[in-house]
Amino acid sequence: MKINAHIAGMPAGYLFSEIAAKVRAFEAQQPGEKVIPMGIGDVTQPLPASVAQAFIAAVQGMASREDFYGYGPVGGYPFLIEAIIQGDYAPRGVDLALEEVFISDGAKTDTSAIQELFAPDALIAVTDPVYPVYVDSNAMAGRLGRCVDGRWERLVTLPCTHESGFMPWLPRERVDVLYLCFPNNPTGAMLDHQQLKRLVDWAGERETLIIYDGAYRAYIADDTLPRSIYEVPGAREVAVECSSFSKTAGFTGVRCGYMVVPKGLKGRLPGGGRVSLNALWRRRLSSKSNGVSYPVQRAAQASCSPQGQAEIAENIALYRQNAAILLKALEGLGLEVQGGVHAPYLWLKAPGGMSGWELFDYLLNRARVAGTPGEGFGLCGAGCFRLTAFGSRENTILGAQRITDALRAL
Amino acid sequence: MKINAHIAGMPAGYLFSEIAAKVRAFEAQQPGEKVIPMGIGDVTQPLPASVAQAFIAAVQGMASREDFYGYGPVGGYPFLIEAIIQGDYAPRGVDLALEEVFISDGAKTDTSAIQELFAPDALIAVTDPVYPVYVDSNAMAGRLGRCVDGRWERLVTLPCTHESGFMPWLPRERVDVLYLCFPNNPTGAMLDHQQLKRLVDWAGERETLIIYDGAYRAYIADDTLPRSIYEVPGAREVAVECSSFSKTAGFTGVRCGYMVVPKGLKGRLPGGGRVSLNALWRRRLSSKSNGVSYPVQRAAQASCSPQGQAEIAENIALYRQNAAILLKALEGLGLEVQGGVHAPYLWLKAPGGMSGWELFDYLLNRARVAGTPGEGFGLCGAGCFRLTAFGSRENTILGAQRITDALRAL
Repeated sequence: MKINAHIAGMPAGYLFSEIAAKVRAFEAQQPGEKVIPMGIGDVTQPLPASVAQAFIAAVQGMASREDFYGYGPVGGYPFLIEAIIQGDYAPRGVDLALEEVFISDGAKTDTSAIQELFAPDALIAVTDPVYPVYVDSNAMAGRLGRCVDGRWERLVTLPCTHESGFMPWLPRERVDVLYLCFPNNPTGAMLDHQQLKRLVDWAGERETLIIYDGAYRAYIADDTLPRSIYEVPGAREVAVECSSFSKTAGFTGVRCGYMVVPKGLKGRLPGGGRVSLNALWRRRLSSKSNGVSYPVQRAAQASCSPQGQAEIAENIALYRQNAAILLKALEGLGLEVQGGVHAPYLWLKAPGGMSGWELFDYLLNRARVAGTPGEGFGLCGAGCFRLTAFGSRENTILGAQRITDALRAL
Repeated sequence: MKINAHIAGMPAGYLFSEIAAKVRAFEAQQPGEKVIPMGIGDVTQPLPASVAQAFIAAVQGMASREDFYGYGPVGGYPFLIEAIIQGDYAPRGVDLALEEVFISDGAKTDTSAIQELFAPDALIAVTDPVYPVYVDSNAMAGRLGRCVDGRWERLVTLPCTHESGFMPWLPRERVDVLYLCFPNNPTGAMLDHQQLKRLVDWAGERETLIIYDGAYRAYIADDTLPRSIYEVPGAREVAVECSSFSKTAGFTGVRCGYMVVPKGLKGRLPGGGRVSLNALWRRRLSSKSNGVSYPVQRAAQASCSPQGQAEIAENIALYRQNAAILLKALEGLGLEVQGGVHAPYLWLKAPGGMSGWELFDYLLNRARVAGTPGEGFGLCGAGCFRLTAFGSRENTILGAQRITDALRAL
């Protein structure tokens, strides 16, 4: 059987699986106090009570003949889509039709699968550093060529560094697709309306598709900043937008997200004809998925209710205060830090010219804190390091203290 | 943006979405008595009580700090994998390691995604008729070329007809991958050990990978028939096996399945080197999925317990009796029928030289019963028709009567 050489040739394991394995190996060798996890962006607050209640009620219904649900509609239940439109979009002045929103089991699934709609030779651009899923999914499909010294032959990268203020440097060449994530993972950077408009206009002029990952938008602290790319005029013609309940309702283990594919969004066939991406995505989804668990969709719906939103706001406030605690500690050490204000991530320059991996090893051994080395997110991540604010308050305070002590001892 | 012409060029919508749309349109035009659904293979019995109980307990845990679970292990939780190995495999003498079983949100997801491991020019074979997902997923990836008059340029089809006794006619040419489904969807046919061994040996001699879909194996009435392909010696070196909780625990709306990828299974790189499919699948999964909802995995685990199995056995017995009722009615009409014994599907030849679509329209209008036209499953499905036994007992009896009356009136 002839296999896909592109998957076989992937340069390394998935970043977060590698880090989890390293931490497990360390803990096995060094019994005693546990490592504080600040590497993987996993939430720690339990499900909001009203969300759990709706979840349970749906399961109880499924155990009865009257409220049993089998296969659901391909793109998700209208009750959930309606709740998302009313909760996330209408208040920001964005009108969406039910058929423009597709429910999925998470933004990772959507952002890794959307590339199936692109031609095999579509040219892809990503920011650097970047969430590895955008790159890996295109690499596995063979769109990026080979990887030599951490650089993919056919991938355009847009450097985002402390020096450039984290605004992507746009490429000179035309690209077919540009992946963006704001608030950014891993850097925590955020764009304002004007900056985002520049990107949308740039994409519109070049017929470039933007995949906009808004999984962290609930963390935007300034209400004048754009929460959805569709707040920018013209974005409906250039952008797909993904989001998720993971970092709001605490769904990293429950699994639910959604993707907006506006009906006006078009791609080009080799012959030059234009085709609706919305229709293509629906076709792809109907052949490859039976949708998301019914009780999970009911739970996600409850998270959009006023009560759910109030409970979620408390969790987000807690994680935001964690970010502030970490930010203060890192700045107190005189480190260069980005993020931590509109995002649950902090992106710092490793001190003393250390590499990100050196800092990872140092903090794991000396502080028993696991972060993520910047190198895992791209070449421009070299010498950088990511910390997450999703821990418990106790762990965040303890972690900040341990990091401070360890770095002071350098 | 350059799009994937293979998805844009798909010949028709997904079969079951098309049928659902036709039934909805009919009901809107013809108000009155409801159409009895015997088209889509969707279960109707509620979740077993013990399964719902475990599901609810897991959600309750997720609402507490102590039993909250975030991101789970990539291939699924060991508690569920262990339950599957002990419940489905050990009793049949099949030993599997934990790392050989991967939990997913259903067999449709797995059988449509596994093709990502194949080379772009891998040659694919399917039975005809066939579950459309195997074909559609390879067609969308561009592996099948163009579709002309219902025939894909680069797809090898193995006819399975009433005349051939539904044993696949093996192709003369070497193929890279062969998809098999037994008990078969749509024909309801089943293979015995000797027949399955012939297929495994054939694949082993040719380095052909078998994707074995066993989603309906709980319906096998004769305990001497193979429930897993791994009961056949040599199958570990040639086969991936998929299964699902959909048609056992009633999970069509809950979403959980699994795929076995034995560690000994290898594919060939263009240079001739051999690579482990298990390692490739894990790499692919870690970059593209965050796994299955934790409470769903707990519910699936409960369905493997002795109490869960006893409750499931009652549901399966009910569906099996439904199949017997339908089989008796159809045979009473003198029709040629396959299936309905080891499978919840009945596959019949349309009477009087009707096409499957003609019989679909006739039964929808005259009997208010929705089946599935054989043409939707492939060229050899022409003039055939599929009925499912997953309805309630009342609907099955009523449907059988209505079909009998309508066909007698022909």
